[in-house]
Amino acid sequence: SHEIDASDSASDKGGYKHYMLKEIHEQTDALTRTLAAGITGDSLHKDFLGEQAHRLAHVKQIQIIACGTSFHAGMVARYWFEKLLKLPCQVEIASEFRYREPVVLPNTLLVCISQSGETADTLAALRDVKAQSTLDDNLLYLALCNVKTSSLIRETDLHLLTQAGVEIGVASTKAFTTQLAALMLLVLKVGQEQNRLTPAESASIIEQLWHVPNAVNEALALDPLIEKMSHAFVERRHALFLGRGIEYPIALEGALKLKEISYIHAEGYAAGELKHGPLALVDKDMPVVVLAAQDDLLDKLKSNMQEVQARGGELFVFADVDSEIKAEERVHVLYVPKISGLVAPIVYSIPMQLLSYHVAVLRGTDVDQPRNLAKSVTVE
Amino acid sequence: SHEIDASDSASDKGGYKHYMLKEIHEQTDALTRTLAAGITGDSLHKDFLGEQAHRLAHVKQIQIIACGTSFHAGMVARYWFEKLLKLPCQVEIASEFRYREPVVLPNTLLVCISQSGETADTLAALRDVKAQSTLDDNLLYLALCNVKTSSLIRETDLHLLTQAGVEIGVASTKAFTTQLAALMLLVLKVGQEQNRLTPAESASIIEQLWHVPNAVNEALALDPLIEKMSHAFVERRHALFLGRGIEYPIALEGALKLKEISYIHAEGYAAGELKHGPLALVDKDMPVVVLAAQDDLLDKLKSNMQEVQARGGELFVFADVDSEIKAEERVHVLYVPKISGLVAPIVYSIPMQLLSYHVAVLRGTDVDQPRNLAKSVTVE
Repeated sequence: SHEIDASDSASDKGGYKHYMLKEIHEQTDALTRTLAAGITGDSLHKDFLGEQAHRLAHVKQIQIIACGTSFHAGMVARYWFEKLLKLPCQVEIASEFRYREPVVLPNTLLVCISQSGETADTLAALRDVKAQSTLDDNLLYLALCNVKTSSLIRETDLHLLTQAGVEIGVASTKAFTTQLAALMLLVLKVGQEQNRLTPAESASIIEQLWHVPNAVNEALALDPLIEKMSHAFVERRHALFLGRGIEYPIALEGALKLKEISYIHAEGYAAGELKHGPLALVDKDMPVVVLAAQDDLLDKLKSNMQEVQARGGELFVFADVDSEIKAEERVHVLYVPKISGLVAPIVYSIPMQLLSYHVAVLRGTDVDQPRNLAKSVTVE
Repeated sequence: SHEIDASDSASDKGGYKHYMLKEIHEQTDALTRTLAAGITGDSLHKDFLGEQAHRLAHVKQIQIIACGTSFHAGMVARYWFEKLLKLPCQVEIASEFRYREPVVLPNTLLVCISQSGETADTLAALRDVKAQSTLDDNLLYLALCNVKTSSLIRETDLHLLTQAGVEIGVASTKAFTTQLAALMLLVLKVGQEQNRLTPAESASIIEQLWHVPNAVNEALALDPLIEKMSHAFVERRHALFLGRGIEYPIALEGALKLKEISYIHAEGYAAGELKHGPLALVDKDMPVVVLAAQDDLLDKLKSNMQEVQARGGELFVFADVDSEIKAEERVHVLYVPKISGLVAPIVYSIPMQLLSYHVAVLRGTDVDQPRNLAKSVTVE
């Protein structure tokens, strides 16, 4: 078993104060390993995903099920599947999916995401779909896990493994970013099996992926600036995290991290929904974190930022260097290393993790074992 | 135009202190009118949805787009479409849908929900889909609005109107519950056009719908008890709202209402996700509102409630009389009038509205015109 007591000696933490901080800093290597398991140079390995991978050619839509952080990874993957491959993709919380009566169409690829591969609701949802489907439905089951001996892996046709190494901190960090990298490899594989990507398109995506570990490394170097920024959150009881498009799930994930380890009530929102309710919460006491990667939605996001400013909210913006977003009074800006919008969610996850880590440390919470939470939710 | 100044004389408020309270109390009649526009006795009107309704026979999947409260109505409808008709249904926030590159399959029914019919992102999403589709795609466009002269109505094939009457309070109440009733009429119509419902099944659903106005009336009689309960929220800065399945969108809607008019940071969660993060927020200062209708998920919900209790959280439960949930220390229970699980979301909306109303009044906010918000978001 990979169960390790988070109170082990400091030496296991490689000199870091907490497992979480160690795991945050392991992401450059974990991402490189996860990518190298699927790609060499500008090509996907021929045998990637094994002998049954040819069955991906018949997939007509994708259904992702997951819980918590893994659900956010699935949300990012949905954007990729629909934008890059034009394949319909749905994502649903496992505990919701399994208890309603969802329609699972023939030729669906069911993707189950769980770090441990033992998450009770995700596993039960998989089993329910398997029990209710017939051979004629031609369903294909894929598990995306960090533990290759897990139940999810044993009970699925295709296995996508993150090479994150053991993750001990309850708040998932390297498991999440490697899930994202692995999901893009899956997008590439499906795209190739279905001829939905030209060789040039595949090569371009792979090139963008290979930039990620370096960009992550540079993002880790923001640590002292983020630590400084984190002081502004210590006395706060609330925060909003805003993103649009592919950064919206990262806003949700950033808010979840802050909830989990600092116990600050942070909530992620699609920035376009601000005017439909949450703007009423914004006043001078409400810090608003914004993810401003360089993409088509940047102008829209800037107008959302102005709405927050006009109501006296304080902005903490993680922005592309070319975003032309400048620091001013009550607008704090940290520039994230340059990265293409497509893979930016992986890189923008890093400052989210560091921010929640430092806020939690300053608040004196038990970072690696936050109250009320377990690492793997193996019971309902 | 239906624009009316919310500061009009008290007489327009029919003796109520606020338009919102007046509109909450108008729901029995508004629901009766909305149902009567589509059904008589145990049958749907033959000409319901007009001359183009026969095109519903070719619909293979449903895509709902909406913002804010209307999005929550769409979430409920998804459960109905998939459970009752086995038709795949997706729901997405309009501002997210329009800016990504979503896959809209041929023979999709695009349902646009907006009280005003002028919501900028919903209208733009509709126009984008229309511009990008061809006749061969055989898409069908339906608007669900409360204003029959609106842009959304003008630009769609099928028109479903709520008979809510003018809604002035910024926080939507009667527009929401009538949207739910109208959506169930749509489910019935699609089910009949596609022979996915037997006459007996249709009649049973219609019978359940006819119970709704009375149950809503009885739920309104809970007002004094809810007012009493609301005192417990006045000094709080946070709240969690939990539901499962078809009540999950009502938890989101209840939280949104409290955000909008009381400025308390309330967040709705699928109860099954509690252990994947938000449980860390739960301590003695965190009120947790639970929607416990009588359905298959009640036992699961009870175990979620125990998790909250074990961490010292205070529960405010809206429960079915047969739920066997009893008041105890730090567990406050209000029994909601008996109603079948299928249409329970309409009835359970009432105590959510009354709770947010009374909390806002006690906090002294401007209930009908909450800060920072507009009634219709007609600009992005």
